[in-house]
Amino acid sequence: MALIVQKYGGTSVANLDRIASVARRVIASRENGNDLVVVLSAMSGETDRLIDLAKKINPAPHEREMDVLISTGEQVTVALLAMILNNLSVPARSFLGSQVKIITDSAFTRARITEIEKQQITDELKRGSVVVVAGFQGVDGDGNITTLGRGGSDTTAVALAAALSADLCEIYTDVEGVYTTDPNICPNARKLEKISYDEMLEMASLGAKVLHTRSVEFAKKFSVPLVVKSSFTNGSGTIVTGEDKDMEQVVVSGIAYNVNEAKVTIRGVPDKPGIASRIFGTIADAGIIVDMIIQNVGADNSADITFTVPRSDLKKATEILDGLRGELGAAEVIADENIAKVSIVGVGMRSHAGVASEMFRALAKEGINILMISTSEIKVSCAIERKYTELAVRVLHEQFDLGDDAPLVTQEEL
Amino acid sequence: MALIVQKYGGTSVANLDRIASVARRVIASRENGNDLVVVLSAMSGETDRLIDLAKKINPAPHEREMDVLISTGEQVTVALLAMILNNLSVPARSFLGSQVKIITDSAFTRARITEIEKQQITDELKRGSVVVVAGFQGVDGDGNITTLGRGGSDTTAVALAAALSADLCEIYTDVEGVYTTDPNICPNARKLEKISYDEMLEMASLGAKVLHTRSVEFAKKFSVPLVVKSSFTNGSGTIVTGEDKDMEQVVVSGIAYNVNEAKVTIRGVPDKPGIASRIFGTIADAGIIVDMIIQNVGADNSADITFTVPRSDLKKATEILDGLRGELGAAEVIADENIAKVSIVGVGMRSHAGVASEMFRALAKEGINILMISTSEIKVSCAIERKYTELAVRVLHEQFDLGDDAPLVTQEEL
Repeated sequence: MALIVQKYGGTSVANLDRIASVARRVIASRENGNDLVVVLSAMSGETDRLIDLAKKINPAPHEREMDVLISTGEQVTVALLAMILNNLSVPARSFLGSQVKIITDSAFTRARITEIEKQQITDELKRGSVVVVAGFQGVDGDGNITTLGRGGSDTTAVALAAALSADLCEIYTDVEGVYTTDPNICPNARKLEKISYDEMLEMASLGAKVLHTRSVEFAKKFSVPLVVKSSFTNGSGTIVTGEDKDMEQVVVSGIAYNVNEAKVTIRGVPDKPGIASRIFGTIADAGIIVDMIIQNVGADNSADITFTVPRSDLKKATEILDGLRGELGAAEVIADENIAKVSIVGVGMRSHAGVASEMFRALAKEGINILMISTSEIKVSCAIERKYTELAVRVLHEQFDLGDDAPLVTQEEL
Repeated sequence: MALIVQKYGGTSVANLDRIASVARRVIASRENGNDLVVVLSAMSGETDRLIDLAKKINPAPHEREMDVLISTGEQVTVALLAMILNNLSVPARSFLGSQVKIITDSAFTRARITEIEKQQITDELKRGSVVVVAGFQGVDGDGNITTLGRGGSDTTAVALAAALSADLCEIYTDVEGVYTTDPNICPNARKLEKISYDEMLEMASLGAKVLHTRSVEFAKKFSVPLVVKSSFTNGSGTIVTGEDKDMEQVVVSGIAYNVNEAKVTIRGVPDKPGIASRIFGTIADAGIIVDMIIQNVGADNSADITFTVPRSDLKKATEILDGLRGELGAAEVIADENIAKVSIVGVGMRSHAGVASEMFRALAKEGINILMISTSEIKVSCAIERKYTELAVRVLHEQFDLGDDAPLVTQEEL
């Protein structure tokens, strides 16, 4: 008998029919002899509706009260699922974050889980109940309601699986699993059977929207066996797990892209110590997260520094640099919104040479100019002009032979 | 400086504009030097929407989960009011029933408050905050969410006022106060300046929908000074308080009516001991609440027993009596839906004779036949044919001189 934590996202609980279908899946797993903890998101659209309401009051709503407001969405879905299960004679109880004591810090709207008191859940499981837990929410040390930020229900599920030493954490969503790239761009994108935590982290943070980044960090840290699968079909999904020998055979596992960044360049900065620290210290103090950074020194001993920031922070970043320009003795500040980042990801890169140059060659062959390059042990990213995004993804997908020419998985209803 | 508990009903928080208007009223009272605890209902219609959702699953939804579901409505409104107040630079914090520890029994969907731990609220007030509390909800000894039944937010407010020894509990609603009768029937109905707890209880339980009955019982038990007023105007409302000398001068304070009851008669029951107990024991076991009961014995030593039940329970009550008919040796069971109950209410009756006969005479003069009579110390009720309801109310209102010939209060916007 295994203990399984299942998590269902917003589209999987979008209405009563969908919640009933979740109930059938829960019951099927239970009939296979499993103990079940089920974590739910709010109905799709509900959290946005509540946020919109709050933003009519103030574009930057009071954060403590925001969490009181938006945590109601999950409360509705867990009650409804528990009702449906009880109605089908399966004992079930819903719990809020504050009830099963998902303790977080007090960073409202983006809280981090610090502790889970598992006693109540294990007691409830022993009584034979399905335990239905509201995702996305917790409670701080003073009893205030907190939420974990967008996609936080994934983190709730993984954290519960870790705390309960669950045998498996199943993340149900509206896609079949993790793909080699976005199937909207490459129709022959292939669903991966398996991906390592590190690869998944790179894919997730690069914009593959299947799993919340923090949940993957959590899963890696506590070695939680994770599977991402569809709640609309019976596919096997994608297993997210530690690295193994097989994985290293594959040089590139997937192609990620991100069109939500913008590029800022400060030109003609005198090349002397402390300049980079001054620039990025000021940017960081403003709460702006910098991704890629490049610096090159020209013949006249002045440097150009270019970096990327989230597009929504571009205006603020440009203003900060304009303010610093005099002090730094820089020539000019240039902003560019029209960029995209494409990346190849794979743990096999660690043991294979020439992967980056193969990427550059493939892009060059299509006339795509590379604006910036950054690398990690298992990833190579290039900033390019935004208009080439789809082309670049397709070219790289082809180059690293990721396609599947078999037909797409049939969408069988459960 | 006074401590005031204010409660706003569903129509008073129906949308963001209305909640903003509540905020202005709260701030005005605060600027008069008062400490404020504000209790809110859900937006009007929201609780019904959630109940409908649950009833699609099962017409008798799982009660524990029902309370998890329907308690979200108040959570939304308290968060929004606290946001608006903070946005206007008035410190405010929202609290759920579980957070301020409104402890109840575990009778889900109709729980009763057993205890309130006031420490958190008084601490918050000392810090200068407006304390905004979700009405209608509590938490049982095991940490389960409970709700107090329809209109329960009134009870939350009165219970908080009692626990905190508040100087005043203001119940804001969409009418000007308590009227001598329904102004839709008698356009010259007069708003009462003052009414005793007991009179209010009779008026409320008879169908005057201004205050939740249980909240009045609570207010009476703990002598909470209560005022019912409109959140849409600046009227003075109606004070609900202990009896005083002035009140006893008035024989009849108001006319109530109720068209939601039905009448059942079981005819030809042998007149022997234990019959009534057998009938009403069985009816009570089915959870049906009986209101008026009359029994008369005919010449042949057989009795007719007639009683009223909520109209929604009529079918069930008739079935039960049909089942008992053989055992009791009764002749027949007759159901009648077409009745109404009209009542005169007033503490002055205690010290004035002839009030009941004056009522009967007034009805007789209009040819209205009296089907049943029941009396209490401060009330006389008559069941009549339903079609005469409005006529009877107008006749009695006139007879006891309750009308006001001054024009109705102007509906000034706040």
